[in-house]
Amino acid sequence: MPVIKIEMFEGRTVEQKRACAAAVTQAFIDTCGGTPQSVHVVFQDVARHDWAVAGRLASDPKPE
Amino acid sequence: MPVIKIEMFEGRTVEQKRACAAAVTQAFIDTCGGTPQSVHVVFQDVARHDWAVAGRLASDPKPE
Amino acid sequence: MPVIKIEMFEGRTVEQKRACAAAVTQAFIDTCGGTPQSVHVVFQDVARHDWAVAGRLASDPKPE
Amino acid sequence: MPVIKIEMFEGRTVEQKRACAAAVTQAFIDTCGGTPQSVHVVFQDVARHDWAVAGRLASDPKPE
Amino acid sequence: MPVIKIEMFEGRTVEQKRACAAAVTQAFIDTCGGTPQSVHVVFQDVARHDWAVAGRLASDPKPE
Amino acid sequence: MPVIKIEMFEGRTVEQKRACAAAVTQAFIDTCGGTPQSVHVVFQDVARHDWAVAGRLASDPKPE
Repeated sequence: MPVIKIEMFEGRTVEQKRACAAAVTQAFIDTCGGTPQSVHVVFQDVARHDWAVAGRLASDPKPE
Repeated sequence: MPVIKIEMFEGRTVEQKRACAAAVTQAFIDTCGGTPQSVHVVFQDVARHDWAVAGRLASDPKPE
Repeated sequence: MPVIKIEMFEGRTVEQKRACAAAVTQAFIDTCGGTPQSVHVVFQDVARHDWAVAGRLASDPKPE
Repeated sequence: MPVIKIEMFEGRTVEQKRACAAAVTQAFIDTCGGTPQSVHVVFQDVARHDWAVAGRLASDPKPE
Repeated sequence: MPVIKIEMFEGRTVEQKRACAAAVTQAFIDTCGGTPQSVHVVFQDVARHDWAVAGRLASDPKPE
Repeated sequence: MPVIKIEMFEGRTVEQKRACAAAVTQAFIDTCGGTPQSVHVVFQDVARHDWAVAGRLASDPKPE
């Protein structure tokens, strides 16, 4: 209440996630109200070979 | 890349969502890097009778 | 912590959701531990024309 | 097994979803194996004011 | 039909998941109807450094 | 826009995912329109002990 799920490429450090969770929680509270205690942020790392855009895996080289 | 999914109680206005999307995107970029163009924010409104905490629907009165 | 998301066909009543949230929360606590206060249950109704099995929408008649 | 969740802008017709579910199910089977009966496809329509890219709601006019 | 997704802190054993899946499936059937064969339960373990409440990672010490 | 999330048993190779992402993206475009560049496909591998049907983990032997 709310739950904020962040799916992103793997590679961010715990320090980045720590800062991100704090900043995103504050951004939500500032704009949508509520209390910090109610805000859940869940990170999900995704490998580059598990994410495709335009039908091409992000781990594959871009076509020239 | 990333996709930020925000599930929250229904009732926020489009103006709040507009401000939230901008603030959350900036919060992500500031802490995790990347470009704004890569950040997707998706809102999903949830009715109070569709969210339970401690086994009690949020639409039900709290026990005394 | 945990978040239990239940996607199901639309049509269940609030009374069914109320009973389901209570029962599922208890089932989780009984088997995985934790406190009821930490358990979130979120229902998401899905229309039959938005759910397909074997490539056929659930709103379509089954082949003979 | 698998569950394929498709989040997209609202506006597609049931006919489009019917064709999409069939085509996506076939695409999965052709490349990853398994049986059609095991493939679930779930559509979730998202309003344009609930989806932001680069911090801007898709319902808002693009900056010049 | 339904799909029940359980996101929780990592650390539960397979035995706990086995018992939880059975209990949650029964809880759903008892309250919402349907057949056991139609119920899917999917567990997703989340590391404590990937879950924040009130902007603080669950892996970090609580403030005094 | 859209985001297509594919949850499936672990074990598919990167080659299978590469072919699947291309085929599913094409299937979506052919039936729902849009441009390939707008289609995101995200794979999430699920261990057999994290997926239950009919209250039984997929890693457990089927009852006779």
